[in-house]
Parts: sequence; structure tokens; C-alpha cells
Amino acid sequence: MPHFNPVSNEVLAQLTAVLTPDQISTTEADRQQHAQDMSQHAPRLSEVVVWPTNSQQVADVLQIAHRHRIPVTPWGAGSSLEGNPIPLFGGITLSLARMNQIVALHADDFQVTVQPGLGYKDLNQQLGPHGLFFAPDPGANASIGGMLANNAAGSRTVKYGATKDNVLAMEVVLADGRILQTGSRSVKQSAGYDMLHLFVGSEGTLGVITQATLRLAPVSAIMSSAVATFADVETAVAAVVELRASGLDIAALEFIDAATSGLLSREEDVDWGENPTLLMEIHAAHAETAELDLALIQETCRAHGAGRFVATTDAAERQKMWQTRHHMFETLRRVFVGHRWQLADVAVPISQFPALVKFARQTLQERNLPELMVGHAGDGNLHIAIPYADEATRQGANLANEEVVLQAIALGGTATGEHGVGIGKAKFMVREHGETAVEIMRHLKQTLDPHDILNPGKIIPQP
Amino acid sequence: MPHFNPVSNEVLAQLTAVLTPDQISTTEADRQQHAQDMSQHAPRLSEVVVWPTNSQQVADVLQIAHRHRIPVTPWGAGSSLEGNPIPLFGGITLSLARMNQIVALHADDFQVTVQPGLGYKDLNQQLGPHGLFFAPDPGANASIGGMLANNAAGSRTVKYGATKDNVLAMEVVLADGRILQTGSRSVKQSAGYDMLHLFVGSEGTLGVITQATLRLAPVSAIMSSAVATFADVETAVAAVVELRASGLDIAALEFIDAATSGLLSREEDVDWGENPTLLMEIHAAHAETAELDLALIQETCRAHGAGRFVATTDAAERQKMWQTRHHMFETLRRVFVGHRWQLADVAVPISQFPALVKFARQTLQERNLPELMVGHAGDGNLHIAIPYADEATRQGANLANEEVVLQAIALGGTATGEHGVGIGKAKFMVREHGETAVEIMRHLKQTLDPHDILNPGKIIPQP
Repeated sequence: MPHFNPVSNEVLAQLTAVLTPDQISTTEADRQQHAQDMSQHAPRLSEVVVWPTNSQQVADVLQIAHRHRIPVTPWGAGSSLEGNPIPLFGGITLSLARMNQIVALHADDFQVTVQPGLGYKDLNQQLGPHGLFFAPDPGANASIGGMLANNAAGSRTVKYGATKDNVLAMEVVLADGRILQTGSRSVKQSAGYDMLHLFVGSEGTLGVITQATLRLAPVSAIMSSAVATFADVETAVAAVVELRASGLDIAALEFIDAATSGLLSREEDVDWGENPTLLMEIHAAHAETAELDLALIQETCRAHGAGRFVATTDAAERQKMWQTRHHMFETLRRVFVGHRWQLADVAVPISQFPALVKFARQTLQERNLPELMVGHAGDGNLHIAIPYADEATRQGANLANEEVVLQAIALGGTATGEHGVGIGKAKFMVREHGETAVEIMRHLKQTLDPHDILNPGKIIPQP
Repeated sequence: MPHFNPVSNEVLAQLTAVLTPDQISTTEADRQQHAQDMSQHAPRLSEVVVWPTNSQQVADVLQIAHRHRIPVTPWGAGSSLEGNPIPLFGGITLSLARMNQIVALHADDFQVTVQPGLGYKDLNQQLGPHGLFFAPDPGANASIGGMLANNAAGSRTVKYGATKDNVLAMEVVLADGRILQTGSRSVKQSAGYDMLHLFVGSEGTLGVITQATLRLAPVSAIMSSAVATFADVETAVAAVVELRASGLDIAALEFIDAATSGLLSREEDVDWGENPTLLMEIHAAHAETAELDLALIQETCRAHGAGRFVATTDAAERQKMWQTRHHMFETLRRVFVGHRWQLADVAVPISQFPALVKFARQTLQERNLPELMVGHAGDGNLHIAIPYADEATRQGANLANEEVVLQAIALGGTATGEHGVGIGKAKFMVREHGETAVEIMRHLKQTLDPHDILNPGKIIPQP
């Protein structure tokens, strides 16, 4: 366990010297607001919250923390799902919320340079008039810095990639306050070690991202959607594999398990029934192409025994269908009043997706937990939402989550497809990567953050 | 400069103990065969060549080298273009040529696990019957290990990404002989530090890749091509930007400058004239979509003043057009008999491509060098082939290359889009990345290879 110092009056005085009075707070209210993300992990208070407004201030804060051995936990929007920004050892919460501007839009290059505190939805709202969007869609209005730190992904990753695939350059402040530039605005780069991707997904444990140049995609001229229901998960996944092999490059390929489809059909204005369901989105350059694509999707789904099949290019219908999916968690909260939630996030090679879903169902049934599963089927990514209202159920949910994680790893997959390691997944790192890999991770951490001040206790399991 | 030991009789005896007699050679002929890649860099002889056939043998060789402070330079196919596998300090050449098998094909997952010595073209030949291919196309029959080590790319990168975008997991032997597993078969991964991409593009200086799981793409049902000639580079690039904004997701978007188009029109069976030319390829799921796409491409090119425009779905015509492009270098060799070649490889944001081409033309004209430029326009990647037959021209070619590199960096780009740093580009690393980034690269190298035995003298400039 690292030895940290408390935030002394001397440290506060030094922080005050590099920040303005409105950029630093030790009030209980401000610390409480940065004590917990959207996960089930217990809140922890930092000792002081700071809101720098530029990279030099971030560097100044880190220099002070480095000198005094004070933990620093970066904070984006607090929308993470694995306790990633919870300040386990107190110290300084470094909020990037006031660094939330677009620095430069390079429309012809399909690029934008932004500050890390900018919200994902806010960014896309500003990009809309230019016919461009930042494709990785984490659902929530996550901060761009948080998305980069966690390598967030979502329903459109099957076509457009995860956050790591959509970043070209970053400015990163290192633990000792040095400011690093990595990557470039060239989409092709083979010029030395790829440090960009070392910092992406490092959850603020190797450096603080203070600026990023992102790849953008053109907003599609024609968007259409389809829903297909299947007899079982196996045939649904067989359809997914064949659709991917067709070269259609489907923009979203989402899975909803039978129980959740049933629940949504009862609660919302959809008629998917109690069946494994695929939701799909197509982005096309012409209306005729969209029609051809939808016909091929229908043919493929029917060949795999799809029951209901509905395709639409109507914007209102599309929106209804996707809103049902995107607001699913709100629906679940309404149904399971007063419950808290354990959210699982694992991913496997698509061929193993049926085996994973089957295992998860058995695990949930054995523990008398509801089956509420959705996934990004195109990527083999499965989420399970497990409600609990008492300690025994919480422990059961926890154990079910662990069993599913171990099974995903055993199937050649990963403990976390898009939520990151945070607090909850550190214990699986050796199982997933092996001893040598975790040793090297620890060595890299020591190299870049010798005093272990950056978001300590995350990612790397304690030895 | 690191202090290395020679390959002594004791070291040879130790190597002989872990290898079979046919796996080790100190003959002049074998060492000469591994002294030089396809670049203009001077050959250097290693002291011994070894051909391990499995990961444990690679680990054994590295343990011996680590203990005795002997340089080890990995060797794939020798097709690199920046001196990347030239053994600058002698020592051991570690050829992966005999580790050239497909380990496992996961067709439903669109993945294949291979050994590093397998040739790119050989892999795709074996994948063909399964309707799959490995998309990054470096032109030559490079080894997969070499492509990973250099983060190779090519004409289809605009749609399918570079090598770094198409690898999911690797086995890497570290400098001290430890065997590391990194990544997983899950296409989504947010589970700790991305060490996979730290080793990709590290040119064998951080570890030796002994196995890799690659992402594959389905072979497209319909492939079609188009050629368009333009009045100038500016309008050609304006068409490129508009085509990318259309959402067509063009599979190849190649640029050939006026002089090279003229030369090819004289020498080969094409009629592009002395005009900046775009070559395009479309991969579609339906014939009707291909027609629609080609119509939109034609409309866009015409709107930007395209002169000749030819589109075709005929396989023979397509092949002729692409062979002219792919065999361009052979054509150049025929025209410039007895010349050697300096090959430039830089990349910039696409908006800066016209400025880069303009600068390159001026530089070449000022030095009385021929203008022979081609590029992956969709990625802003430019290549210049400069022939020389005497020392004065060689020096001029070298200086022209340096000026173009510095200009590419000044335009927000990179010293190398796809050939890697090797010997020739190390001196530009500080200019491109800054002092801090190069310090960190050096620090990472020390962490992973404390005795600097792995491919020494590459990537990182001497302090």
C-alpha cells in the first residue's frame, strides 16, 4: 500500500497559489459531489477538489502533489460504472469540468481538438451543423476525457470503433507535471512508440489527459433500422455472423435477451415479445442502398428463423425503437423501485456469445436473480443489470458478476469490454492477462508515476 | 552508445545448446542475406543468424543475449523500407522465417492466429477459400511480424485501418526471455494498459512478436473501381474530402501525381495523361449499390472538374488499373535503369495534402530531381520515389527527403506514415514528438530492455 501524505495547510497554500479562489474547495458538499460515480462502489471523500482551467494549472497541481506524495484522482462527468474516479485514498480530486471547450474544428480533416471536460453529447450537438459526429457512444453524457481514460465504447462501435480507434493526438500531463504531446493530426502514424494508446484506457493512472484530437465521422445521409426476434440466442448470433460476413457494415447490432425483451414489450410501446431480439441500424449514402441493405438483412434473419421482423426508414419509428433501448435502464429502475444495481460488462469472441449468455442465464437462475441482459452483439459485448434491495441479494449479484467475468475470460474474452477496470475488475487482471503482463503493467506504472499518486488503487491489483 | 559484447564461442555454444544445427549459421552467405532490407541504407553484417521454430526457442535465445549483452535484431521478410532490420551493431539476427504457420482460424469470429514469419500474401491466399482476408496491404509479401513491428499500412487503410487497427492479441518475448501475452480475442477490450499497441510499431526494440491474433474482413461480394484525372492537386483533394464526407467508405483512394501519371500512360496500357489522378476502389454488398456508389463518385469528381472519368466493375479492367499502380515501382526501375532509390514516406492531415505536394514538387524541381509521387490520398500519406545514380544526386535526394519530412511535421503530420522510423527517421523524432515524448520513449525502452539489446540504434535518437 503506498504511503501518502494528507493535504496539509502547506499543500493547500501551494494549491491556492496556482489557482484562483473559485478553483479550489474543501467543503463537504463539493467533496461529496465527487465521491461516487454511477457504479455500486462505496463513495469516498477526497480532501480537496480543484477545477483547473488550463493545462499549466493541471501541471502545477500535479507538481505539488508529486512533491508532497498526495493522491490525485481525475474527474470527468462522474458517469463511469466501475468506480473509476472514486478517490480511494483521499487527496486531491482534479475535476476537468471547466476545461470543456472545443479548441479547433478541422472539418475537412474530419477532426476536432477538444478539452477533456467537454461532454460527449455536448460535443455532438456542436458538431451537428457541420454534418459530423464523434461516433463512440457511451450512452451517458460522459466527458471526452473520461471516455478516453476508460476507452469507452457503445452501440455504434461495431462500425465506427471504440474511443481508442477515434483519437489521433493527446496532450497529457504526467505525474511530475511534465506536459507530453503524443500522436499527431495525421491519421497514419508509424513514428515511434504508440504512447497515445498507452494513456488511452489507463484511467488516469499514468497521466491526466488535458487535450485530445478526435476522429469524426460524417453524419449518414440515410439512417434506417430493423428489429428481428429469434427463437434462441444461437440462431440470433448465427444471423449476426452472417450479417457481418455479408460486408454490410451495420452501424449498430444490439442484442436484447428474451426476459428483457418481454419486460420492455410489457412496459413500453414495442411488441418484441419474450424473445431474443436484435436491433440494427444501417447508415447508407443513398436511400436505394438502405432499401437493398434492409432486404438483405431481412432475408438473412428469416433464413435463421426470425419471427417478427420490422424494418423502417421512418425517423419517428427509428427513434422510438432506439429510445426504448437507450432508456431501458430507466424502465428497469421504474419496475424495480427502490433497488440498487450491479452492472456487469464482459466481452467474448462473437462465436462464444451464445455460450456466455447461456452461462449467465444459468448463474442468474441459480441465484434467483432476474435475467436482464443486453449486449452489443456485433462486438460480443454483454451487459447484465442485476437489481438488489438487501445485503444477501447484493452479495449474490456480486458473486454472479464474478462468475460471469471468469467465464468470459475462460471463453477467450475480457473482464471488461467498455466500462474499464476501476475498482471492481482489478482482481481479475492476473487471470485475464497472466502474471508477466501484470508485472509489466506495474513496471510501466512505476516508470511513469514513481510515487503512485495518480488515481491509486485502480487497474493494477495490489501485489 | 551501448556497450555490447561479441558473439563469443561460449555464446555460440549456448545458442547451439538450445537450437538444432540447421537453426544456426555463422556463414558469410547467410549473414549477407540478412544484412539489408529494401531501403537505401547500407548493409551491416550480424555475427550469427538463428532460425527458431517456436516461442520457447526465441525466449532461450533472448535469455542468452540478455545475459551476455549481445544485440538481437529480429528479421521478418526483409521487405522493409527504412533499414528497420539492419543489424547496426552486429550480434544475432533472429529470423522468424520458420515460424510461418497459421495457428488457428476462427472464421466465425473473423479472426486468425498466426506465427510472425507468415507472409502477408501467403496468409491471404490461405484465407481466400474462407471468404476472408487480412486487409492492411503493404504491397510487398511482408511478414505479418514485420507488419506488426512497423505498423504497416497501404492502399486499403482508408477503409480497413492500418495493421495496428487489425490486431487483437499478441504473444511477445521480452528482452530477458519472459513470454508476455497481451490483448485477447475479444474485439472490445478496456482491461488495463494497452500494451498490445506499445509493441505494435516498436520495430522489435521492445520485444519479439512470436504470435498474433488478427482481425479479418469479409471479401467483398462486389468490387468496382474508378479512375478520375484532375486539373490540379487542390481539386483532386477537394473531391477526396467530399467523397469521404458522402459516407461512401471508399476502400482505396489513391493519388498519382501528374508526372507519374504521364510516365505510366507512356509506359503502360493506361491513358491518364499528365494529370493528377485518383484511383478508387469500392467494396459493396450488392451490384446495385456499387452502381449507385460509382454514379455518386462520378458526380462528385465531375463537380470538381475531373477530365477523364472511367468506372468499371469488370474484373480484368480493374486488375489492369491496380496492377499499373502496384507495379509502378517496377516500371520506374525499367525507365531509370541502373538507378538506386530514395523512398520518402510522410503523412499529413488531408487538408494539408495539396500544400505538401506543392512543397515536394518545388523541392524536387530545385534539385533537378524527377517528380515521381504517389500517395494514399484518403489518409494524407505521400510517397516520393527519387532515383539516383551518383553520389551528388544521392545527397540531393537525401536532402529533398529531409526537407519534405520537416515540412510534413510542420503541417501537423508525421515523418513516417507506414514505413516506420528505422535508421532514417530517428533524427526527426524530437522535432515530431518533442523532447518530453522522446524522453518517455527512452524511459519505456529502458524499462523493457535495460541492456538495450533489442534492435539497438533504431527509433530512439541517441542523446
